[in-house]
Amino acid sequence: MPSYTAPIADINFVLHDVLNASGTGLPSYEDMDKDTTTAILEEAGKLATDVLAPLNPVGDTEGCTLENGVVRTPTGFKDAFEQMKAGGWTGLDCDPDYGGQGMSYLMHSAVNEIFVSANMSFQMYQGLTHGAYSAIHTHGSDQQKATYLPKLVSCDWTGTMNLTEPHAGTDLGLMRTKAEPNSDGSYAITGQKIFISAGEHDLAENIIHLVLAKIPGGPEGTKGISLFIVPKFLVNEDGSLGARNGVNVGNIETKMGLHGNATCVMNYDGATGYLLGPENKGMRAMFTMMNEARLGVGLQGYAQSEVAYQNAVTYARDRLQGRDVTGVQNPEGPADPIIVHPDVRRNLMDQKSFTEGARAATYWCAHLIDRSVRTGDDDAEGLVSLIIPVIKGFCTDKGFDSAIGAQQVYGGHGYIEEWGMSQFARDARIAMIYEGANGVQALDLVGRKLAQDGGKHVMAFFDLVKSFCKENAEVEGMEDIIASLKSGSKDLQAAAQFFMMNAMKNPNAALAGSYDFMHLFGHVCLGFMWARMAKAALNPGDGDPMFYETKLTTARYYMARQMPATKMHLARIETGAAPVMDLEAAGF
Amino acid sequence: MPSYTAPIADINFVLHDVLNASGTGLPSYEDMDKDTTTAILEEAGKLATDVLAPLNPVGDTEGCTLENGVVRTPTGFKDAFEQMKAGGWTGLDCDPDYGGQGMSYLMHSAVNEIFVSANMSFQMYQGLTHGAYSAIHTHGSDQQKATYLPKLVSCDWTGTMNLTEPHAGTDLGLMRTKAEPNSDGSYAITGQKIFISAGEHDLAENIIHLVLAKIPGGPEGTKGISLFIVPKFLVNEDGSLGARNGVNVGNIETKMGLHGNATCVMNYDGATGYLLGPENKGMRAMFTMMNEARLGVGLQGYAQSEVAYQNAVTYARDRLQGRDVTGVQNPEGPADPIIVHPDVRRNLMDQKSFTEGARAATYWCAHLIDRSVRTGDDDAEGLVSLIIPVIKGFCTDKGFDSAIGAQQVYGGHGYIEEWGMSQFARDARIAMIYEGANGVQALDLVGRKLAQDGGKHVMAFFDLVKSFCKENAEVEGMEDIIASLKSGSKDLQAAAQFFMMNAMKNPNAALAGSYDFMHLFGHVCLGFMWARMAKAALNPGDGDPMFYETKLTTARYYMARQMPATKMHLARIETGAAPVMDLEAAGF
Repeated sequence: MPSYTAPIADINFVLHDVLNASGTGLPSYEDMDKDTTTAILEEAGKLATDVLAPLNPVGDTEGCTLENGVVRTPTGFKDAFEQMKAGGWTGLDCDPDYGGQGMSYLMHSAVNEIFVSANMSFQMYQGLTHGAYSAIHTHGSDQQKATYLPKLVSCDWTGTMNLTEPHAGTDLGLMRTKAEPNSDGSYAITGQKIFISAGEHDLAENIIHLVLAKIPGGPEGTKGISLFIVPKFLVNEDGSLGARNGVNVGNIETKMGLHGNATCVMNYDGATGYLLGPENKGMRAMFTMMNEARLGVGLQGYAQSEVAYQNAVTYARDRLQGRDVTGVQNPEGPADPIIVHPDVRRNLMDQKSFTEGARAATYWCAHLIDRSVRTGDDDAEGLVSLIIPVIKGFCTDKGFDSAIGAQQVYGGHGYIEEWGMSQFARDARIAMIYEGANGVQALDLVGRKLAQDGGKHVMAFFDLVKSFCKENAEVEGMEDIIASLKSGSKDLQAAAQFFMMNAMKNPNAALAGSYDFMHLFGHVCLGFMWARMAKAALNPGDGDPMFYETKLTTARYYMARQMPATKMHLARIETGAAPVMDLEAAGF
Repeated sequence: MPSYTAPIADINFVLHDVLNASGTGLPSYEDMDKDTTTAILEEAGKLATDVLAPLNPVGDTEGCTLENGVVRTPTGFKDAFEQMKAGGWTGLDCDPDYGGQGMSYLMHSAVNEIFVSANMSFQMYQGLTHGAYSAIHTHGSDQQKATYLPKLVSCDWTGTMNLTEPHAGTDLGLMRTKAEPNSDGSYAITGQKIFISAGEHDLAENIIHLVLAKIPGGPEGTKGISLFIVPKFLVNEDGSLGARNGVNVGNIETKMGLHGNATCVMNYDGATGYLLGPENKGMRAMFTMMNEARLGVGLQGYAQSEVAYQNAVTYARDRLQGRDVTGVQNPEGPADPIIVHPDVRRNLMDQKSFTEGARAATYWCAHLIDRSVRTGDDDAEGLVSLIIPVIKGFCTDKGFDSAIGAQQVYGGHGYIEEWGMSQFARDARIAMIYEGANGVQALDLVGRKLAQDGGKHVMAFFDLVKSFCKENAEVEGMEDIIASLKSGSKDLQAAAQFFMMNAMKNPNAALAGSYDFMHLFGHVCLGFMWARMAKAALNPGDGDPMFYETKLTTARYYMARQMPATKMHLARIETGAAPVMDLEAAGF
């Protein structure tokens, strides 16, 4: 069975050596000193290693079951969920007015990574609840906040997001679920939603569904969509649970992975719903949550890579096959451990350098979200909106590749479910799809974010990279790293330039290159992070020198072996629309 | 449920327009005229579409079951297997002396592709039998041939390959299974083998296991390995079945995919075995089969890509989401089909251009195998041995990526098992692992094949490409295609040059780049095939002009959007050993 150990030193390295979290003076960063973060991460790590990780294969094997309208989660999930609640983990960055602990979103992200690595299906019950909390916290009335937030913070109640319908996925304007006004100010919600994660389960007393629906007579398309709170059990004035609402699970899906989380078809049959935020502004309300949700999915990508990598390293150290071509390393044994073989190392270094780079990028972005949300920093907000689709798309694509690479280290054993490597890959696969499939992330990046506010945010990103390069170009040990980052950044600028020159005449000239642009941006983003990590590693504190040396070596690997991808992506982008668009639809 | 239609026009295009099969005059190519191949492919296509493809999800869902030592295949497999036998499909390229039809290996490969696309798990029962047939046909005594071949050709009996043991996968020298001589000239085989595909099942009267084992007192390591025939039921002199032999299935594995094929732990408990070929030459006997086996696995990679692509195209034409940014295409509908969106097309073109290129490369190699085996052409044999690891490694890696891309077209529905796209990806995954994991293919390519016979074969490959480029550089419509192929080939030569300059001093300088080299070679190989296909398409016969136009457009796509990868791989290779080897093993 696979195991998981929280990479606390790596996490602390990003929090402190790279982001200098405790030195920022941001609200909610008061308790971000290294002693405190270490204590928190160690506690989270214990829960992850001892409770959540052992339940991961259980969730995969048993899955969720639906019987007579009741969904049962896998054996042990309920117990673990109670431990999660008892440990106070569910409201780490939530508003203290509603029972939260008021910590930063950055700290929440670090802890979330640990739980997601250990058991992604399990952690999603809490993750979706956090999303519902954020929506109601941002858009709810005082009464709605008072009614729902304390229970969502404690996870006595959990939350869901209901967007997709069978015929309306990316194109939510096609939605048919309707919300008809009742005389008491509530609405009667009728329609079917699909792919509702944690739509029904046995972990909580109540489930608070956030549902997008159309009020009849409103504008066409996405402009006529409103957001509603639809509790499974109506809530009485005193906060106690009242009548069962007209919302039911119709089916649970059999999926490639994520078996421990129930993916539900939800049927709304005149269910009572309460408008959240203004009429017809449901999409806007959803969008305010989207940054956090998409960052969380990008995190799932590298978190699965992290746990898969840990196990691949263990296997590569244990498995004896063949001999080091440069000389026997394990003369006492019948063969050398496979970690001596260059291609096994190449594979492991790909996984390692991606995972640590993605962690840094994700935490950086979480930190920018704190700046944006907690201090109203518009520049940070702009940068976040630009980088979110990159992190979501790139980190989930590469996270999946990385899990596949880790599985490959096991040879035939990797294909056998018992060893657990297949689950990491199958679970990681969904992250490329939900919260906006990665092609949609690329479209968002190139079609919206790049030119947003006159291209101000992408210019800000380039300025950040440029300043860093300028400051560090002459620093001993940084020369090659800076040269590689500069080269990648130049490729990214050339790609953006190509879009600017050509997209006015032909939008497809940009859109045909959007996926490559997302990956090109991802490499520059992770390259920037590796350069910052290398800089930090060159100025080590009093920690283990080998730890810092390893960071430098890994940074050099990323620059040497991953950054060359930027030129390939640029070359593809510069072929423009024709190769992609020339074939008649009938020719496929 | 997904569907499959044999791509007969595409297959015929490679057989006739590109390879000019009927004009080669090779033995066994007499019946390769287009009318005959069309008739055969159409019949195979009917069986595939009507019988095998509908059983593919059945096999995935039901899997195989083991009860009291009996393995049951999924519902319908036995019936379908009888139809396969009755249709005479099992001995297409086998020796007529033993009931085969004496056709070419090329034709076998084309038909095999169709069956693998339709149902990979099912087709493997037959595929492994073909491997056992080849081994006995090449290495068996007259008596062994007479005893086993007719039954293997008809698939009344099936075959297996037993190499792997729990502690001995890639490194077969560690093998412990022993073969002790009996007084009658047979051997008593004792040991445990794992990952034995089709090791036990209910489709055949008898199962002929080919087993690698060590005769006590023989040389150490792989030099002391011999190959044995171990029938499940011993065969009487009159050919009837005798006593049950001491070989039993210990367990069947629960796998990520390939559920319809039983992957068995086989226990040999003094089972009677018969030496096949000379003592201690088992590895050599295995190697003679390896080219065909590895080509067959490379074929599985693109065959899964083909069926996944077909379904992705259907979905992309049906699914209505969003509008074409350049103008509404489906004004009558609520939205446009997603095939209008550039990134969906980019994804489909990646799949299409890979699959058709891989088909051409595989058939080319099958044709070279015919030349080598049926006319003793040593140059062809050398080229085959060079290209096999490229086709196995590259086509299975890219075939998996392509199946993942096809799944992505479906958005959330791709993750739901019911739609069938997950199975294509899960089934394709194994092809990267078995028959030598892809890292081992890269090692074989760079560590053995590249320098084999003084580098003669790789020089021959470069000469082929060079001559083609020279002949066609000025042909109207070929200019860009040739330029791109030349550039890729130059990168491949530079990489080979880098290895030559550095590997003597440090073998890891080559091995650290072996995986990139395999992919670089794969791109040049497919680029060469696309150039040849483009040339053929520029001289169309009397077929549908749009068919040939589509080939040209797809060739241009491959050159524009895939060939830029060669520079990335070269850049990585040229960073040498240091980035990959610098990290201490403890630093992972």
